Amino acid sequence: MLKGPFLDRNWMGQNEDYASSDVVMLGMPFDGTVSYRSGSRFAPELIRLASWGMETYSPSSGKDLKEVSFHDAGDLDFPLGNTYKSLDLIRENVEQIYAEKKRFFGIGGEHLVTLPAIQAISKFYKDISVVHFDAHTDLRKEYLGEEMSHAAVMYHIGGIVGFENIKQIGIRSGMKEEFNLMKKYNTKLDFPEQLIKLTNKNVFVTVDLDVLDPSLMPGTGTPEAGGFTFNELMNWFKELRGLNIIGADVVELSPHYDSSGVSTAVAAKVIRELLMCM
Amino acid sequence: MLKGPFLDRNWMGQNEDYASSDVVMLGMPFDGTVSYRSGSRFAPELIRLASWGMETYSPSSGKDLKEVSFHDAGDLDFPLGNTYKSLDLIRENVEQIYAEKKRFFGIGGEHLVTLPAIQAISKFYKDISVVHFDAHTDLRKEYLGEEMSHAAVMYHIGGIVGFENIKQIGIRSGMKEEFNLMKKYNTKLDFPEQLIKLTNKNVFVTVDLDVLDPSLMPGTGTPEAGGFTFNELMNWFKELRGLNIIGADVVELSPHYDSSGVSTAVAAKVIRELLMCM
Amino acid sequence: MLKGPFLDRNWMGQNEDYASSDVVMLGMPFDGTVSYRSGSRFAPELIRLASWGMETYSPSSGKDLKEVSFHDAGDLDFPLGNTYKSLDLIRENVEQIYAEKKRFFGIGGEHLVTLPAIQAISKFYKDISVVHFDAHTDLRKEYLGEEMSHAAVMYHIGGIVGFENIKQIGIRSGMKEEFNLMKKYNTKLDFPEQLIKLTNKNVFVTVDLDVLDPSLMPGTGTPEAGGFTFNELMNWFKELRGLNIIGADVVELSPHYDSSGVSTAVAAKVIRELLMCM
Amino acid sequence: MLKGPFLDRNWMGQNEDYASSDVVMLGMPFDGTVSYRSGSRFAPELIRLASWGMETYSPSSGKDLKEVSFHDAGDLDFPLGNTYKSLDLIRENVEQIYAEKKRFFGIGGEHLVTLPAIQAISKFYKDISVVHFDAHTDLRKEYLGEEMSHAAVMYHIGGIVGFENIKQIGIRSGMKEEFNLMKKYNTKLDFPEQLIKLTNKNVFVTVDLDVLDPSLMPGTGTPEAGGFTFNELMNWFKELRGLNIIGADVVELSPHYDSSGVSTAVAAKVIRELLMCM
Amino acid sequence: MLKGPFLDRNWMGQNEDYASSDVVMLGMPFDGTVSYRSGSRFAPELIRLASWGMETYSPSSGKDLKEVSFHDAGDLDFPLGNTYKSLDLIRENVEQIYAEKKRFFGIGGEHLVTLPAIQAISKFYKDISVVHFDAHTDLRKEYLGEEMSHAAVMYHIGGIVGFENIKQIGIRSGMKEEFNLMKKYNTKLDFPEQLIKLTNKNVFVTVDLDVLDPSLMPGTGTPEAGGFTFNELMNWFKELRGLNIIGADVVELSPHYDSSGVSTAVAAKVIRELLMCM
Amino acid sequence: MLKGPFLDRNWMGQNEDYASSDVVMLGMPFDGTVSYRSGSRFAPELIRLASWGMETYSPSSGKDLKEVSFHDAGDLDFPLGNTYKSLDLIRENVEQIYAEKKRFFGIGGEHLVTLPAIQAISKFYKDISVVHFDAHTDLRKEYLGEEMSHAAVMYHIGGIVGFENIKQIGIRSGMKEEFNLMKKYNTKLDFPEQLIKLTNKNVFVTVDLDVLDPSLMPGTGTPEAGGFTFNELMNWFKELRGLNIIGADVVELSPHYDSSGVSTAVAAKVIRELLMCM
Repeated sequence: MLKGPFLDRNWMGQNEDYASSDVVMLGMPFDGTVSYRSGSRFAPELIRLASWGMETYSPSSGKDLKEVSFHDAGDLDFPLGNTYKSLDLIRENVEQIYAEKKRFFGIGGEHLVTLPAIQAISKFYKDISVVHFDAHTDLRKEYLGEEMSHAAVMYHIGGIVGFENIKQIGIRSGMKEEFNLMKKYNTKLDFPEQLIKLTNKNVFVTVDLDVLDPSLMPGTGTPEAGGFTFNELMNWFKELRGLNIIGADVVELSPHYDSSGVSTAVAAKVIRELLMCM
Repeated sequence: MLKGPFLDRNWMGQNEDYASSDVVMLGMPFDGTVSYRSGSRFAPELIRLASWGMETYSPSSGKDLKEVSFHDAGDLDFPLGNTYKSLDLIRENVEQIYAEKKRFFGIGGEHLVTLPAIQAISKFYKDISVVHFDAHTDLRKEYLGEEMSHAAVMYHIGGIVGFENIKQIGIRSGMKEEFNLMKKYNTKLDFPEQLIKLTNKNVFVTVDLDVLDPSLMPGTGTPEAGGFTFNELMNWFKELRGLNIIGADVVELSPHYDSSGVSTAVAAKVIRELLMCM
Repeated sequence: MLKGPFLDRNWMGQNEDYASSDVVMLGMPFDGTVSYRSGSRFAPELIRLASWGMETYSPSSGKDLKEVSFHDAGDLDFPLGNTYKSLDLIRENVEQIYAEKKRFFGIGGEHLVTLPAIQAISKFYKDISVVHFDAHTDLRKEYLGEEMSHAAVMYHIGGIVGFENIKQIGIRSGMKEEFNLMKKYNTKLDFPEQLIKLTNKNVFVTVDLDVLDPSLMPGTGTPEAGGFTFNELMNWFKELRGLNIIGADVVELSPHYDSSGVSTAVAAKVIRELLMCM
Repeated sequence: MLKGPFLDRNWMGQNEDYASSDVVMLGMPFDGTVSYRSGSRFAPELIRLASWGMETYSPSSGKDLKEVSFHDAGDLDFPLGNTYKSLDLIRENVEQIYAEKKRFFGIGGEHLVTLPAIQAISKFYKDISVVHFDAHTDLRKEYLGEEMSHAAVMYHIGGIVGFENIKQIGIRSGMKEEFNLMKKYNTKLDFPEQLIKLTNKNVFVTVDLDVLDPSLMPGTGTPEAGGFTFNELMNWFKELRGLNIIGADVVELSPHYDSSGVSTAVAAKVIRELLMCM
Repeated sequence: MLKGPFLDRNWMGQNEDYASSDVVMLGMPFDGTVSYRSGSRFAPELIRLASWGMETYSPSSGKDLKEVSFHDAGDLDFPLGNTYKSLDLIRENVEQIYAEKKRFFGIGGEHLVTLPAIQAISKFYKDISVVHFDAHTDLRKEYLGEEMSHAAVMYHIGGIVGFENIKQIGIRSGMKEEFNLMKKYNTKLDFPEQLIKLTNKNVFVTVDLDVLDPSLMPGTGTPEAGGFTFNELMNWFKELRGLNIIGADVVELSPHYDSSGVSTAVAAKVIRELLMCM
Repeated sequence: MLKGPFLDRNWMGQNEDYASSDVVMLGMPFDGTVSYRSGSRFAPELIRLASWGMETYSPSSGKDLKEVSFHDAGDLDFPLGNTYKSLDLIRENVEQIYAEKKRFFGIGGEHLVTLPAIQAISKFYKDISVVHFDAHTDLRKEYLGEEMSHAAVMYHIGGIVGFENIKQIGIRSGMKEEFNLMKKYNTKLDFPEQLIKLTNKNVFVTVDLDVLDPSLMPGTGTPEAGGFTFNELMNWFKELRGLNIIGADVVELSPHYDSSGVSTAVAAKVIRELLMCM
C-alpha cells in the first residue's frame, strides 16, 4: 500500500470518527427546483475545498474549529431529476443522525433541502423554532404550480413547526401575500437582541447565503441588493451562541457565478462560524 | 404618440409581417430537463440581441438575409417547471405554422424542444429525414429515470420518423448502447457529400451548438472537445442547400458560460447561415 | 396566426397602453462621448431583460410596480456616431411626452442623455430642481475639448435650471474647480432629510449608477470607491417620495463589466424603486 | 540615485537606442471611432507587458528577436475625442520615421490608425502594396455617416495606393457592395503562395487581429467565426519573409474581452513573428 | 451509521480496491517552482470533480473506462514550500507502486513532478523511452538559477534515460540552445506513425496540457498559440495504444484561468483517453 | 527623433526629477513566498496604468497629488525565484533613498517586501512605530517551515522595532498564538483616534490591501470577509495626516483575480490617498 501522506479530502478540522462526533455535516447537492440561476448542486464539494484556505481559529468567537466535534459525512447521492426521492433520502439520513443522538449540519444545495431535515427533526424534538436568514420570504404556497419548491420551503416548514415559530432575518424580497403572512405571524426580527426570546426553544438555524449583500455574495441564484455585510451577519451569530441549537444548514451558493472565488470562501467562513455557535 | 425612431427589437433582417412570411422563427426558452449546466432558457433573447452585431450579407452563400422571408414570432411563454405543458405549447404552435403552409425555425432552449416540433410536423409531412448535428447521440431511452429528457430526444424522434431516417453528424460522446443503436440503423454521416442521399426527402435540420468545438463554443451545457470548427460546419451547411428543408432548429446555447460573448455571436451566425439554406 | 402565449418583452409590470399611462419609460442606448470604459449603450435592453427576475412588489415602499402606470416605449434608434442628432432625437421625444401631459423616465446610456431631457422639460416647467446622484460632479465646462460630454452634463444643466437648483448627492470625485463650483452654489446635500427643502419645486431626479459603491456596481464606466450601499441609496429615495417628481432617469450601467450579472440586477431594482417614488 | 536594477518597461528585445535602430515601434492607443466593443486603446501597453512572457527565440523562423533592430518609441499621447488631430499626430510621427530612413511598426488601437501611416509612407515610397489580414473588408465609403471610420480604412487606403494594390487575406464579413469591390479589383488572396507576386513591390502589412478565429482571439471588437488558426496565419507570414516590407502594423486587440489573457499573449506573439519578417 | 447513499468522491470509474488494480492514479498538487501563472496545485481535485461530467465510454477507442483497472489513490500532501521534500514524497510513493507491480498514472501539478516519477521507475525498468507532449522543450539546465524547475524537467530526465530516448511532440517554444539540443539528439517527432519505432521500448508518456492550443486550453500556466486541436492529440494517442506503456502523467492545468470550465473538462477527457491507451 | 507627444508611462502626477523629489515610489514585483493565490508580482505595473484613470485632486483631503513631490522610480528587477537576493535588492535601494534624505513609498508585491524596507529605514531612524493595516496578523515565526514568508513579516519586523511599536488595524484572521501575541503587546487599535498616541513617533505605514472587504477587493491573495469599506479606511487615513510618516507601502494586490478592474482602481486610489498623508 502507498504510505502517502495523502491530503485529507474532508472538511477542514472535522472529526474523522462518526461515532464520537456530536455534529454530523451532510452535503446535499440538490438544485432540482431552481428555475433562475442554478448550480447550487456543485456547492458542497467546492465549499469543502475552500475550507482548507481558512484558519481553524476564529478570532470573533475566540474558539477553534477543532473544539466542535463535527464529522463530515460526505454528500448524498441523489437520483438526479427526482425531487421526491431526493427529499426522502435527506429525511431518512437526518432521522438516523438524531436517532444516534447527534445533530445535523446541512450544506446545500437549494433551500428546499431544509424541509425534509425539519420533518425528520420534528420526530425527535417538540417546540422547535426556526431561525431563518434569507433575502426572500420563501413563504409561497406553491411556485410555478409546484408545491415542492425552494420558494415555498418556509411555508411548508410553517405547517410543521407553526408559523409563529419561524423567525426571519434579512428578508427584503417577496410577494405582498408573503409579507402579509409575515406580519400576521410576526415572524420578522429586526435586531440581534431579539433572539434572546428563543432561549427556551429548540432552535434550528437555516442560512440562505443570499441574506448577505450581493457585493460580497454574487455567487447565488437570486442576488438581492440591500443585504447584510459579513459583520452584520456575525452580530446575529453572536446572539445565537446562547441558544439551544439542535441543527442548522447553509444553502444556495451557486459557484458558477463566483468568478473571483470570494463567494465560496465566504460560504466556508459562514459555516465555520455557525459551527462554533453549536 | 412618440415618433421615435425606435430600435427594432426583433431578429435582424426579419419580415415584420407574419402573413407574408415563408419561415417562422420561434423562440423556445425552455431548459427544464437539463441537469448539468443549465441556462439555455436565456438564449433566444440574447441571440436576438447579438443578431444586430452581424451583417445581413453572407459571403459564404453570397446571399442576404433579407432574401429569406422569415418572421420572428417572439418567444413562447412557458409554464416554468411543467415539462409536459411546455412541450404541448410548442407542438400546438408548430402545428399552426404548418397549417398556414409556413416552415418552422426554432431557437432553443434545450434539445428536448425538437421533439414536439417533429411531432407537429409529422402530421403534415411523411418521409421525414432528420439531420442531427450534435456532440452527443441523445439516443437514450430515458435519462435519470425520466423519459422526457434532452438526452433522449433523438430516441423519441426515431420512434416517429424511423431510426433509419436519422442522420447524425459530429457525434463524439454517448454510452455504448447508444453507439450500438447508431451502428444498427447506420445513422452516422462522415462526409458532407453523403447528404446528397437525402435529396428526395423532407429534411428537418436540428443543430445542437455543442457540435462545435468548445474552443469556439464554451457557452453550452455539456462542452465536448473534438468538435467542428466553424468552417467545417459551414461545409456541411453548403450541402444542405440543395435539400428540401421543411424545418430547422438551433439549440443548447448557455449564455451564462459565455463570458466573452463569442458563443452567442457564433450562435447568431449559425442561425443566419442555416436560414439561408432554407 | 400563432396563439402563443408569448413572453412579454417589455419592462416587467408596464402598462401596455401608451395613451392611458402616466409615466413613459424611454431607453436611450447612447454612449458616444464616453472615453474610458464604454458600453452603456447595451444597458437599456439588458436591464429590461433583468427586470423579469424581480418581484413587482417592493417591501421597502409597500407598493407594487403595477400601481405605477408606466409605459415602456422601447429604445430610441440613434444615428450611431452623431452626438448632436442623437441629442435632438431625445429632446424631440421627451417634448412629445410632456406635450401629452405625461412624465419621462429615461434609461441610459451615458449621462449626457439627461441634457436634452432637461432642455425639453424646461419648456413645460419652470422652477425645476435637479436632484443629482453621482460619484462625479460632471461640472466641467468641457472635457477633452468637447462641450457635449458626459463629464459636462451638469454644467450645461446648470445653465438651464440655475446652478443653485442642482442638488448633488454622493459626489466623491472631480477636479478642484468643480468642487469650488459646488461650494459656490451650495449644491451638495449631506443628509436625506435635506431633500425636504425641495417640497415646492418641480423635481427631476437623475441617478448615475456609479453613486453606488463599486463593490455592488462594478459594471459602470468609472467606478469610484467610497460609494453608497444599496440601503443608503434607498434612504435617500424614501425622502424623494414626498416631492413633486416631474421626471427622472437612471444612467451609466456598463453591462460588459458585469460578469456576475449583479450590477444589471441592481440597476433594474433601482429603477423599480425610483418608479415607485413618482 | 538608485542603483536598481530596474525592470525594463519597453518591449522585450528592443534596441534601446533610437538612432541605430532600423524599425521603430510606435504605440497608437486610439479607438475613437469604434462603436461596438471598444477598448483597443488599452492594447499597446498591455501587449508590451505580455511581451515579457515570451521567449525572444522563434522556432518557426529560427531567428531571435534580438536580430531585428527595433526600437520601442512608446505610445502617442492623443487628444482623446479628437479624431482628426489624432490622425495628424500619427502621420507626423510616421513621416519623421521615414525621414530618418527607418521603418514603422505600429501597434493599435483601432484599424483607422493605418490610414495616416500609409499617407505618411506614400510620401517616401511609390508602388506600395498593402497586404491586409482581416475578417472584415473595411471597404465602406463611410460608416454611420462618418468617413473617418475603422470600417472605411481600406477604402481610403485604396484611394492612395490604388485598390488593385490591396491584397486581402482572411476576409469573411462585409456588405455585398464591399465584396463586389473586392471582386472588381481582385483584392482577395486565397493561398500564401500568391504573395510571391508582390516580390517587386514595396509592401506594407496590416494585421487586424480578428483575422484569427475568435476561439483564439476573443479579445477583439468584432469577433467573426471562421478565422485562421495561429498556424494558418504563420503559413502566410512565412511567405512574407521574402518580400520587401517597408512597414507594418498590428491592430484591434480589445483587452477588456480577454479574461484569460490568451488574446493578449497571442497578439504579442503575432508581433514578434511579424517583426521577424522585416 | 448513515446509510446514504453517498456520492463517490474519487475519479469516475476507478477500481476502489488498490490491491487488485493495475494502474494507480496519484494526484500531485505541487506548483512550487512556477513563476508565471501558478495554481496547478488546485488541478487534481478539480479534474476529479469534472471527471463525473463525462461518460465512461470512449467512442474513439471503443472502450469503457471500467475496462481499465485503475485505482485513485488521492492526492499527496506536500510540505508546501519545500521542493526537495515534495519530490522525495513522489519518488517514494511511485517506487512503492512499482514494487507492487502496478503502474503509475500521475496528475499534476506542475511538470517538475515527472522527474521523481522517472527516477523511481528507472529503478524497475531499463530501456525507457519518454514520450513528451508539450508546447515547451523544458530542456534548460536551470531556470532562474534553480536546477529543480519545471522548465528543466526534461533536461534532468534526459540525464536518466538518455536524451536520445526522449521523443518530443508539439514543441513550439524555447531558447535556441534547447532547440539545438533537440536537433542533436533528434528528439522531435512530426507524425504519429513515428511512434511505432518505440514498439520494443518501455514507454513513459508525459502530457503537458499546454500542448493543446490555448483556444481550447486557456487554463494553463504558459499558453502558447499554435498547439494541437483535441483531435490531433487523439491521433497521436491512437498510435500509443500499441506500445508498452509503463507509466504516464498529465500536468499543468491551472484552473484559475479556466473561467468557462472547458479546460478542466478537457483535462479530464485527456486523462480518460490516456488511461485507455494503457 | 520623434516629437510625439508620448504618453507618460510613470505614475500619474509624479515628479519626473528624482533629485528634487521628497518621496520615492518603488515598485517591488515580488511574490515568491505566496502559496495560495499568487500574482501580486503583476501589481505595480497594472496599478501604474490604472493611476491614469483617476483625478489628481482628492476631495476628501482637499489636496492635489501634484502637491506631493513624489518620484516614480520604476520597478525593481528581481532574480525570480531567489527570495534572499530579492530582499537584499530592496534593502539596498531603500537605504539609498534615506541616504539621500528622501522617503520611501513602496508598491508590492507580497507583504514580505516590507521587511527589508524596515531593515533599511531602521539604520536611519530610531523610535519607529509601524502602523499595520491588514486582515491577517502576519505574526507567525515561520510559515510552512520557512522563516522568510509573507505570513511572518510582522513577526520579523517586531524583532526590529519592538512588538509594542506595532499597531495593527483591521486584523480578523490568524492562529490563536498570533492573537495571543497581539494581546501581550497590545498591538491592536480599534478606533482611528487612537493613532494620536503616535504623534511623537517616526511612523511607517504598511497597507495590506486585504484589509478592505473582499466585496471591494476580490483581487487579493487571501480574501477575508468582514473587512473595511473604503470610507472606513479613509477615516483611519485622516488620522494619519497629523503623524510624522517616514515611509509607507501598499501591498498584496493580485490582478489576476480582478476581472472587473475595480480592485486595481481601488489600489491606485488607496495609494493616492496615502501619498497625501505624507
